[in-house]
Amino acid sequence: MCYRDAPINREYNSHCRCVQVESRIIPPDSLRSIKLVPEGPHCPHTEVIAGLSSGERVCLNPQSSWVKKLVKFVLDKQMQRPPKTQA
Amino acid sequence: MCYRDAPINREYNSHCRCVQVESRIIPPDSLRSIKLVPEGPHCPHTEVIAGLSSGERVCLNPQSSWVKKLVKFVLDKQMQRPPKTQA
Repeated sequence: MCYRDAPINREYNSHCRCVQVESRIIPPDSLRSIKLVPEGPHCPHTEVIAGLSSGERVCLNPQSSWVKKLVKFVLDKQMQRPPKTQA
Repeated sequence: MCYRDAPINREYNSHCRCVQVESRIIPPDSLRSIKLVPEGPHCPHTEVIAGLSSGERVCLNPQSSWVKKLVKFVLDKQMQRPPKTQA
């Protein structure tokens, strides 16, 4: 188990959410979401939480080059028409 | 309103979550989380949802250079000791 359940506040917990980080590489096609939680008073390091197609949530190491590449891949994959911009 | 509430599934909605994207630049100190949701059968484009310190959730344009920079900033900010790796 590497993701703490029962958060006090879903958006901003009072503690780190990740107990351990996953060392396996996550294939992009099993990825449903990536959440980046910057360091702050609640936790001294940035946390990266991946939601998988299996429903599982795993913590990734933000320092891993493959994690940075995965994030870049998701952002750069955006080749569709630009979304509407709020007026 | 640029974030749809009442998702069918918190991890993987059956539709796009963002109706509009925010054009204002989000200062890093008001940022609590950034969630990247890759395109898929539910939505034809990648979505980037920022959680703010105010509790507000806003959708950002993944094609904006400042959004890419913000994501990079959060990942590169990780200067602490590496988290434990799962055995």
